[in-house]
Amino acid sequence: MDLDFIKKLIKPSDTKIVFLVMDGLGGLPIKENGLTELETANTPNLDSLSAKGVCGLQQPVGPGITPGSGPGHLALFGYDPVKYQVGRGVLSALGINFDLQPKDIACRGNFCTVDENGLVTDRRAGRIPTEKNKELCELLKRIDIPGVDIIIETVKEYRILLVWRGEGLSENINDTDPQALGKKPLQPKSGSQSAEKMARIVNDFLNKASDTLSGHQPANMILLRGFSQKPNWPTMKESFGLNCAAIAAYPMYRGIAKLLGMNMLETGETISYEFNTLEKNWTDFDFFYVHIKKTDSSGEDGKFDKKVAVIEELDKEIPRLFDLNPDVIVVSGDHSTPSLLKYHSWHPVPTILWSKQCRADKVTKFGERHCITGGLGPRYPSCDLMPLALANAMRLEKFGA
Amino acid sequence: MDLDFIKKLIKPSDTKIVFLVMDGLGGLPIKENGLTELETANTPNLDSLSAKGVCGLQQPVGPGITPGSGPGHLALFGYDPVKYQVGRGVLSALGINFDLQPKDIACRGNFCTVDENGLVTDRRAGRIPTEKNKELCELLKRIDIPGVDIIIETVKEYRILLVWRGEGLSENINDTDPQALGKKPLQPKSGSQSAEKMARIVNDFLNKASDTLSGHQPANMILLRGFSQKPNWPTMKESFGLNCAAIAAYPMYRGIAKLLGMNMLETGETISYEFNTLEKNWTDFDFFYVHIKKTDSSGEDGKFDKKVAVIEELDKEIPRLFDLNPDVIVVSGDHSTPSLLKYHSWHPVPTILWSKQCRADKVTKFGERHCITGGLGPRYPSCDLMPLALANAMRLEKFGA
Repeated sequence: MDLDFIKKLIKPSDTKIVFLVMDGLGGLPIKENGLTELETANTPNLDSLSAKGVCGLQQPVGPGITPGSGPGHLALFGYDPVKYQVGRGVLSALGINFDLQPKDIACRGNFCTVDENGLVTDRRAGRIPTEKNKELCELLKRIDIPGVDIIIETVKEYRILLVWRGEGLSENINDTDPQALGKKPLQPKSGSQSAEKMARIVNDFLNKASDTLSGHQPANMILLRGFSQKPNWPTMKESFGLNCAAIAAYPMYRGIAKLLGMNMLETGETISYEFNTLEKNWTDFDFFYVHIKKTDSSGEDGKFDKKVAVIEELDKEIPRLFDLNPDVIVVSGDHSTPSLLKYHSWHPVPTILWSKQCRADKVTKFGERHCITGGLGPRYPSCDLMPLALANAMRLEKFGA
Repeated sequence: MDLDFIKKLIKPSDTKIVFLVMDGLGGLPIKENGLTELETANTPNLDSLSAKGVCGLQQPVGPGITPGSGPGHLALFGYDPVKYQVGRGVLSALGINFDLQPKDIACRGNFCTVDENGLVTDRRAGRIPTEKNKELCELLKRIDIPGVDIIIETVKEYRILLVWRGEGLSENINDTDPQALGKKPLQPKSGSQSAEKMARIVNDFLNKASDTLSGHQPANMILLRGFSQKPNWPTMKESFGLNCAAIAAYPMYRGIAKLLGMNMLETGETISYEFNTLEKNWTDFDFFYVHIKKTDSSGEDGKFDKKVAVIEELDKEIPRLFDLNPDVIVVSGDHSTPSLLKYHSWHPVPTILWSKQCRADKVTKFGERHCITGGLGPRYPSCDLMPLALANAMRLEKFGA
């Protein structure tokens, strides 16, 4: 449903909604017994919740589409990730918790190698170590272009963030990365008349960067991508009338939550610590987003047993959540990360939605195959979850008489 | 599917389709055994129909959206309720079976209380009894505004219907209800140049109404909402080539059916009487909409056992339907009304679709949880039902060569 449609139906309430987001939750079988990580995990509390709740598998972007963390989370929060797209520069800024100002233009930079004719021979500069990246950034920071502050931050290995701050700038600039070897970096060109000043500034900077980095092989040039401005999206307060809090330890997830206007709670990296934070702040918010990172990172490392253990660790904390007497609980993930693939995947993500007035289905165990016959459906759009959670929280008016 | 798309595929046939609509059919468990009203009911005939048919749960408007009766029915009949919206004034007219003419402008009125400064202190005039409403309407009917007939009808308690009949009128007038206490009623203003005459007329009327009602506390003023004209939608004959009949005792449902060009059959309030009407008119129509009201009203009253009894009452009549030898039978509701909530709800609505050429699924009992694994899906859009019924009635051509 369109956010504007939902907005008109919002009614006030003092109910509380909790989204437990196990990053990369969905998996695939890897062992002889044919069970996924979630199906293998011993999860008595989640199983009991699935028996009392309504289950299913959500598809964040579309059939066969593997979501990045941004789109996966936006969909969970009811923002259609195809409509609400974030530029790569802004995503880079979110990823290192850089505090973008409304007029800032962010872009992602790669150190690269060019030959004596200026042709790109390695788009990642031999994946230089992060330490080298930092040294080179110090050199680049000395470049002065009148009329603009250029903030340069190391991300990791060959990757940097550039933020252009000043008056009359524009995001309407093409990528300079030619996306192929044996070609020159592209000229930064303006996509509109109002971006001509910006094009000149970027061009000046790149010429000076080329001089500065000359002789620093393999990192003797930079390529820029994804010029973009912080989007001006409706906050979750505006869209759903919810006073939201994010409990997430990692910068990328805090960044996404911030884009939607959630309040950031200070927390630690363990699940237990995150639940402490939840308890401490329980009375102050209507909606809690609790992010569990290590299901994803163990999946990306191909560590099936580690991922099982993280799921079991969360399961043990569930009674603490019930002690708070929440009105709606959603347990799911932002995408699948099967240990088998060591990467995000397109597989739909197991979900439990519980409230006192949900219509429980016959699913009695939390697992990919169990959820297929759940009441939410085997491959439902993730964007359905937020309106369903709002309805279960008795926060939506009837539509029409 | 878009109505225009379906329309191009319509082919003539002499098959007959019956929609049995149990208003507010879907429910929730309320007792220890964890069964809903429908799951509790002893329904051998509906169970047998579900075994021979294809089942599922339909979602009238969208995930988490609680439908009013209007949107719920429009979706069942294949009209997307988000696209086909009816103004509140027209709905009020439908609700009391007022015969709106094409150029009429209808709006809903509330008696309200204003203080000596004209500020609203009660938007519902202390919910005055219907008898008082009728007395005051007699006074309002004496108001004469040149160039327009103003028809005033009592609805219930503080609610009235106003119909503005004449040449050069317009629905493009804002609500005068300020939607808050301590504020003056809003001035009726024209939303376009062609509505200026209408704005003057409404303004004149309200000034005179204020004089007329002065001293009649708590009902000493009126607020107007939802100026609207009968929509000019394609009829079901135009959309689907069906000669349709409505068997519905209550005004609101007759009104909705009339908007879609159905023929109104005279009937009584009992299910048995409605089936008499069906039998009597069987040869004259292609499509029958049979509305069963009391599943909804018992749900709204929180009467679980009463709702069970109404479902069982319908079940007993099913053999009479089969004796007529119909080609397609659909059994469902326009929305859920769980006795637990005493109100319409967002929960998807159980459905059976039967024809000689449907592909029966494995569902053998008619109930919310049984329908989840049915062939129609656990949460399919209600607008899918009408094209599926048409296909099963062999009334749709192949698309493309």
